[in-house]
Amino acid sequence: MTDNRLPITDQNPLVIFMPAGRRGRVTPGQSLLEAARQVGVEIESICGGRLTCGKCKVVVEHGRFDKHAITSTADHLTPPGEDEVTLLQRLGENGACRLACSAYVTGDVLVFVPEESRAHKQVIRKSATERAIEVNPAIRQVYVEVDEAELGEHRGDWGRLQAALARQWQLTELTIDLLALRKLQERLRAGKWKVTVILWQDREVIDVLPGYHEGIYGLAVDIGSTTIAGHLCDLRTGAILATESTMNPQVAYGEDLMSRVSYAMTHKDGLEKMHTAVIETLNKLAARAVRESGLQSRDIHEMVVVGNTTMMHIFLGINPQELGGAPFALANREAMDVKARELGLRLHKAANVHILPAEAGHVGADNVAVLLAEEPYHQDEMMLIVDVGTNAEIVLGNRERLFSASSPTGPAFEGAQISYGMRAAPGAIERVRIDPETKIARFRVIGEERWSDAWPVGEAVLEAQPVHLAAGICGSGIIEVVAELFVVGILMPDGRFNPTMTDHSRMQWHGRKGAYILATAEQTANHQPILVTQDDVRNIQLAKAALYAGCKLLMQRVGVERVDRILLAGAFGSYIDPQYAMLLGLIPDCDLARVTAVGNAAGDGARIALLNREKRLEGQRVAKEVTYLETAVHPNFQDEFVAALHLPHARDPLPHLHGLLPEMDSHVQRTRSRRRNR
Amino acid sequence: MTDNRLPITDQNPLVIFMPAGRRGRVTPGQSLLEAARQVGVEIESICGGRLTCGKCKVVVEHGRFDKHAITSTADHLTPPGEDEVTLLQRLGENGACRLACSAYVTGDVLVFVPEESRAHKQVIRKSATERAIEVNPAIRQVYVEVDEAELGEHRGDWGRLQAALARQWQLTELTIDLLALRKLQERLRAGKWKVTVILWQDREVIDVLPGYHEGIYGLAVDIGSTTIAGHLCDLRTGAILATESTMNPQVAYGEDLMSRVSYAMTHKDGLEKMHTAVIETLNKLAARAVRESGLQSRDIHEMVVVGNTTMMHIFLGINPQELGGAPFALANREAMDVKARELGLRLHKAANVHILPAEAGHVGADNVAVLLAEEPYHQDEMMLIVDVGTNAEIVLGNRERLFSASSPTGPAFEGAQISYGMRAAPGAIERVRIDPETKIARFRVIGEERWSDAWPVGEAVLEAQPVHLAAGICGSGIIEVVAELFVVGILMPDGRFNPTMTDHSRMQWHGRKGAYILATAEQTANHQPILVTQDDVRNIQLAKAALYAGCKLLMQRVGVERVDRILLAGAFGSYIDPQYAMLLGLIPDCDLARVTAVGNAAGDGARIALLNREKRLEGQRVAKEVTYLETAVHPNFQDEFVAALHLPHARDPLPHLHGLLPEMDSHVQRTRSRRRNR
Repeated sequence: MTDNRLPITDQNPLVIFMPAGRRGRVTPGQSLLEAARQVGVEIESICGGRLTCGKCKVVVEHGRFDKHAITSTADHLTPPGEDEVTLLQRLGENGACRLACSAYVTGDVLVFVPEESRAHKQVIRKSATERAIEVNPAIRQVYVEVDEAELGEHRGDWGRLQAALARQWQLTELTIDLLALRKLQERLRAGKWKVTVILWQDREVIDVLPGYHEGIYGLAVDIGSTTIAGHLCDLRTGAILATESTMNPQVAYGEDLMSRVSYAMTHKDGLEKMHTAVIETLNKLAARAVRESGLQSRDIHEMVVVGNTTMMHIFLGINPQELGGAPFALANREAMDVKARELGLRLHKAANVHILPAEAGHVGADNVAVLLAEEPYHQDEMMLIVDVGTNAEIVLGNRERLFSASSPTGPAFEGAQISYGMRAAPGAIERVRIDPETKIARFRVIGEERWSDAWPVGEAVLEAQPVHLAAGICGSGIIEVVAELFVVGILMPDGRFNPTMTDHSRMQWHGRKGAYILATAEQTANHQPILVTQDDVRNIQLAKAALYAGCKLLMQRVGVERVDRILLAGAFGSYIDPQYAMLLGLIPDCDLARVTAVGNAAGDGARIALLNREKRLEGQRVAKEVTYLETAVHPNFQDEFVAALHLPHARDPLPHLHGLLPEMDSHVQRTRSRRRNR
Repeated sequence: MTDNRLPITDQNPLVIFMPAGRRGRVTPGQSLLEAARQVGVEIESICGGRLTCGKCKVVVEHGRFDKHAITSTADHLTPPGEDEVTLLQRLGENGACRLACSAYVTGDVLVFVPEESRAHKQVIRKSATERAIEVNPAIRQVYVEVDEAELGEHRGDWGRLQAALARQWQLTELTIDLLALRKLQERLRAGKWKVTVILWQDREVIDVLPGYHEGIYGLAVDIGSTTIAGHLCDLRTGAILATESTMNPQVAYGEDLMSRVSYAMTHKDGLEKMHTAVIETLNKLAARAVRESGLQSRDIHEMVVVGNTTMMHIFLGINPQELGGAPFALANREAMDVKARELGLRLHKAANVHILPAEAGHVGADNVAVLLAEEPYHQDEMMLIVDVGTNAEIVLGNRERLFSASSPTGPAFEGAQISYGMRAAPGAIERVRIDPETKIARFRVIGEERWSDAWPVGEAVLEAQPVHLAAGICGSGIIEVVAELFVVGILMPDGRFNPTMTDHSRMQWHGRKGAYILATAEQTANHQPILVTQDDVRNIQLAKAALYAGCKLLMQRVGVERVDRILLAGAFGSYIDPQYAMLLGLIPDCDLARVTAVGNAAGDGARIALLNREKRLEGQRVAKEVTYLETAVHPNFQDEFVAALHLPHARDPLPHLHGLLPEMDSHVQRTRSRRRNR
């Protein structure tokens, strides 16, 4: 917004964030959101300052605060523009609030960041599935005895090492990393000319260690839009030594991919900021993983990284702006190897980073990793793999044919664009059941084992374990509540709240727009009820329709009426109850026993590529063989999308839900016959 | 000496260097030499603090200096040790002086750096000889028209560029530098899908420029122990756009190679300091060269570096310590390519640096470059090439056989280890003639065209151009004065001053040790006479004997009695008068018309490797084919060395000097008959 390069002096405005009490002087004209980042206060922002999400609400304190030696007034910020006023009104806020992204600092100011606006440290529950993978990594260690240097023999230490590797291991045409060469002489002598050589792809010497040495390790990382997950592996045994997850720090620059592409396009240093943020986060993640395993960062000799195409561009320091619009041109679709140090990664100094190839502009290395993990190309049955996230990737096929597509579902499934949405963190409602008779919900929150109807009330509270009250709704919670609302008849198949429910105690009505009280004021952390609004339902409908339509177009392309098997992948995918996914109409009809949540398949695929170099080549073959279907411009997309907006669907038969949707079945019949009669 | 990592505060000792007036606070225990470097004052140091050269004399000022708010006293330095006292006494200094390398700071001190101790900016007179070289560099630019990205086609921009390069230029299996990939999308679109690609070795894309673009440039550098010289070349025409030279900043850490090896071994950060110093100097040299040519650093797409093995180790950041003792093991003898950015070089961001191979522990890439420049392996005549420097490399051979050797001549030929020695800078005596009758010398100094006997004297001074008075003797001057002293009979064939010269006005005697007054007090800048001492003559004898003995052993190895041609290479080599070199007995007998100074042949060879990629391969073949002779441990070395100590030689006939050394001829006859009679 402003030139941040001017020096900061005591004359610059002082900004203090409460209750953390963090403070700092900023360049006049910086937004409060930027100022917060600068002093290390994490404020929630989903849209990345585009005045869409309204998550970054803050309260400006007025008056003279002697303790802080500051006078704060609303005049010390630029006045709110029309867009901000509109959004704040829509959020039901009176004049006390500002949006941190749109309030620019002009003088000293003391700001209160309410609980709901604070970015939570996320609880991640990804875990790698145990799979049988042949351990044949891209790096290996060989022990070798080298001729001692002697006068009159001039091959040099590297020449002597090459000769020994050729003689004892039939390894020829090797190169040596400059940093390994720098240590070579010292290591050869320390080992009395007996050394252990670490080789990359039997091509490059990346380390020479004195004497006999055992132990090579690698890190497999999946950079998701929201979550970064890594497995530290022992490359001799294939064992996972540590699994670490962390939030993608780029979330601060925009929740969904397009917000980040836009951030990179509209901010001169936007790419640099997001690139540095992810690299620093990976360094911390790696440091945690090695610490936990009693190792050091320099013990990581190899890394495999997967992610969607935008994440991979930013990781490599490539501006993702071409992915922001048609024709969605990738900078590079091929697999790559890059020195970790070139990216600023603090692993072994000569470590390489392998990046899996992409399939198309919106189907990236993470999908190739999912393919490697699930191997639909080795199956006879027609398999549908849905990697649910902010951007959903869909694969359909078997050993004969393989198609992929991507659906921009948006962040609704991850709790964003939902009034009371939040990420899968403690306090998030993740499971919901609604009593068909009373229409009252009971729920379970993350961090609290008891369902809400088992929470102590009245006198019992004093004697009981304190309850972890509800703070919002996460992805699996929103799917369950919308599905349940529909099953019990509160929602109509078209997604409207049932107008006959006007008087129910759990319903609120604003004109013709209904809202359902999922949690009452007593059940929540901030003593405000948690609602599911009509807009929330609409957003879920849009997201699930995009996903369903994508699946449907792929099925049409392949020419199948139904699929044999469905895999729900992704961190969030593992927590979706397959039955609710189908009740909602997120996925096409399938035997529920054949719908499986497979967890972070992309992370598993990255691990596979880390453990087995042949699998990298397999990934490169598959990436080229899979046919990408551009669903968004497909002539049938609009029709399929509209039909899929209905709960669970306007016309597709869903035989495997028979009996589960008694009230729905008649609806569907009615709808279907109406459509046929037109 | 001390831990420099402690923070520097106002409590730390303040050191001020006059007359520059530079000041800084230092860690207690730092030497004045280190302190001077730290504040940017260049003090001459040849031995790198080993109490050998005595070049770093400074005067400590005593008293209270209000202007500087400092009280300075000798007590604010550690007292001189026995070695320092001895050296200062030998230098004829009374108590006022200290050696900056050995005086450690304990309190505030104000130090005067006399003119003679200040490191001069060197005048370099290397210049590339014009040679016909086929221009076929390792990089080239190709213009290419790339398919536009379109929806439904997923190759990615790099894939499309590869396809275009394969189609239009038959270039396949290419890689792309990460930094070029980062710019690829923007450049393709800026050029409307028409771009100029810069390729390295037809293997790696290092840059993509929008539209049609002409111009690729490279830098060829010879890192000498004392001098770094670089040619900026147009890689299309082969033309030299700029030639730049600068002093090797490592001179501050030791004049000769062994001093630097020792500095790297004895100082924890010694290698790092010397590596950084040379990299920074190369960056400045490159910046000057491009500025002079109207280009920018990013226009340098390729660099070739040659140097002796120690210089190449330090340049690559490899500790040269193994070169400090037998068996003189190189880290790497082979040619290498390294990304310039990996070394901290500021050229084009994806530029590669090519390093020529070495031959043996003490014959490095610079000698391979000399071979490339002079191509003895393509000659019928038996050619002797002597690359004179602090370390001399000698090559002998023709198209059938090729042998090399190195001789540690020491820095005497570059003016070091000589009482009044200095580098080839203004004021240095470079030419000397002694009248056979009067035995009085006339000389010429660098920066002054008139010989000393033509300098204005008395009244005439006022009307004449001011004379650039003598400040010391440089390499070619010392060779000429010693040779002339011998020719006119002042020096005996064994190197002693002629004892019959006791009463001559130009002679000084200290007991039996004579010294010759080359320049009188009136002819010098500091009004002290410039002497050639007995020790100076001994040092020159040692150096020339090492060189001659090396040549002789090579000739024995090859089995020739005489050579057909002699080339004197090296920056210093170009200024040696071949006749004086032979009169002194520096080189074996040869037709004087066949002895040529070829200038910086190593720099020329680097330029050849820059301009022609095939020549790199030729260099790799030759480096392996040449047979290195370890002269220092050769059984005949001692005998040849002792015989070569004589002026010009104790026993070898030198027919081509017949008539030039009338007085010598009888000497030699006498010596020779004595030896035969024993």
